[in-house]
Amino acid sequence: MTCGITCGDINGIGPEIIVRYLKERTQAESSEAGAGSDKFLIVIPPDVFDYYNTQLDANLNFRLINSSEIHDTEKGDSGIYILSLDKADFTPGKPTRDSGTTAFNSILKSYELINAGAIDFIVTAPISKYAFRLAGIDFPGHTELFAALDKSADFMMCFLSESMKCGLATIHEPLSAVPALITQELLEKKLRVISGMLQNDLLIDSPQIAVLGLNPHAGENGLLGREEQLIIDPFVKNHPGLLFGAFPPDSFFGRKMYSGFDFVLGMYHDQLLIPFKLRNQNAGVNYTAGLSFVRTSPDHGTGYDIAGKFCADASSLAEAVKWGALIAKNRKSHAYQN
Amino acid sequence: MTCGITCGDINGIGPEIIVRYLKERTQAESSEAGAGSDKFLIVIPPDVFDYYNTQLDANLNFRLINSSEIHDTEKGDSGIYILSLDKADFTPGKPTRDSGTTAFNSILKSYELINAGAIDFIVTAPISKYAFRLAGIDFPGHTELFAALDKSADFMMCFLSESMKCGLATIHEPLSAVPALITQELLEKKLRVISGMLQNDLLIDSPQIAVLGLNPHAGENGLLGREEQLIIDPFVKNHPGLLFGAFPPDSFFGRKMYSGFDFVLGMYHDQLLIPFKLRNQNAGVNYTAGLSFVRTSPDHGTGYDIAGKFCADASSLAEAVKWGALIAKNRKSHAYQN
Repeated sequence: MTCGITCGDINGIGPEIIVRYLKERTQAESSEAGAGSDKFLIVIPPDVFDYYNTQLDANLNFRLINSSEIHDTEKGDSGIYILSLDKADFTPGKPTRDSGTTAFNSILKSYELINAGAIDFIVTAPISKYAFRLAGIDFPGHTELFAALDKSADFMMCFLSESMKCGLATIHEPLSAVPALITQELLEKKLRVISGMLQNDLLIDSPQIAVLGLNPHAGENGLLGREEQLIIDPFVKNHPGLLFGAFPPDSFFGRKMYSGFDFVLGMYHDQLLIPFKLRNQNAGVNYTAGLSFVRTSPDHGTGYDIAGKFCADASSLAEAVKWGALIAKNRKSHAYQN
Repeated sequence: MTCGITCGDINGIGPEIIVRYLKERTQAESSEAGAGSDKFLIVIPPDVFDYYNTQLDANLNFRLINSSEIHDTEKGDSGIYILSLDKADFTPGKPTRDSGTTAFNSILKSYELINAGAIDFIVTAPISKYAFRLAGIDFPGHTELFAALDKSADFMMCFLSESMKCGLATIHEPLSAVPALITQELLEKKLRVISGMLQNDLLIDSPQIAVLGLNPHAGENGLLGREEQLIIDPFVKNHPGLLFGAFPPDSFFGRKMYSGFDFVLGMYHDQLLIPFKLRNQNAGVNYTAGLSFVRTSPDHGTGYDIAGKFCADASSLAEAVKWGALIAKNRKSHAYQN
């Protein structure tokens, strides 16, 4: 398996956690005979990679390649390949026009790589929507950008951990815009993505999916909002045996009811991200379901406040690589069986 | 100290957890010499109390009193007093007009008791807004009802546990109504309640208060909503050294940043209730700040689905009694010092 990793915002913690992860992995491998057959292709300005490679005493061996050499990775048994991006202004801690442009180019390049078959899945380091905006790029996040590149109308931002698998009906929307976006059409579309994902990517054949309410107490019989009665409850009833809910969000998480379901469908960003991050700390992974290729990422942001301080934690990136490899493997096995 | 307890919705788990708590407490006290000086005054239909007293093998001794005898509790050293409410249709698991009326009457009576000085604080068992509505009562919750009785314009729904103390700018509102309710005036009003509460009730003199954003990523510099830039950030800046934020809600909880603050101000119900319940399980307590008296409650609902099944957990009620007693004691000591 070859794992492609984007650099994310070079002024955030992305480059540090990439080097840190590869260092930890290399050290673990050197103590385990026989391990280490995986390959990594990192899309990053070489000076940024070098900087953290030196500062973290990682001493990683890598080979610098250009776009015409991307298939050379197939020849080596294992190792780290750097696909070079143009040198950019590098000022850890600060979102800039340059850091936005570089993050964007890294994503575009990773998309070329996966289409060319040079990598088996993509892991993305965190980007800044603000730096994107400074660079004149109008995408709120990876999920929407990859969906546009992949021409996927039906995609979904999901979060994966051992204890909780969940996804969002709406993603990067102002809270005031959310209620009007929740329609039966949207929910049916998301359900198609979830069903395909559970079957093809996680190999779960007869899933049970919990659906959260939008309002406090799931509207409490219409007293605290009517979206449940008008939209969400009828959607659930349309799929008996598959969907359950709409559950009051607070007691759903308070009672750890998520552990009884294969998947949880949430209505808006913080409704799922707050409990997912609180519950999973660094063991959670962001996953874009519904794409023609596999893309995961750590579930944290750029961490500008700690960037360049050499204290970032690479464990969520490690999980993203693990889940990305698992899903890529599952997809191949599912395609083979069918 | 005399603790007044309302029955809540008699068809929910309220009566069961009251009996269960008193049973556990009585058993603990009988094994600890010298303990047991506290009094309890429960406002409940006697047949409902009897039912759980028998079914749970609690064998609690209690004295039935009527409204003219409420000051008799002052004479006894300890014990359980039942202030009798009218017999009502009792069908565990089902919100009814009768259960709504009884819950409402129990609250009104508890308010009389605290005004008469017969109890030192009120602990309320869970009610159903739906049963309230069936009974023609137009209050979304305890907090709003007690605030109306107490004629408090400045009150606040708070949640207390050892690890997290927090409160809500808006409470029982449809999600679509929340953004328009967030104004600087509202936030300043809530801050006055918080400051008074931290000083008088929790004896914290120089608090540091975290303020959460409304939108995902706290609006990310206005890209995902402007309430932070227009309202919340200026509010925070008005109170340097006291207020901090606005924090992106998901990473705030993911990084457990609440442990660095004396209090967390959240914008809407599920933004705080989801992480509070997930983090604290049954160790969390609901507290109405800003009232002239002390009122706490368990942080869970009526639990109709498990009512009458004798499997309810009384630990949040136990915490509510503990916090209520502490705050009542703190208020007295603060009044004495000043």
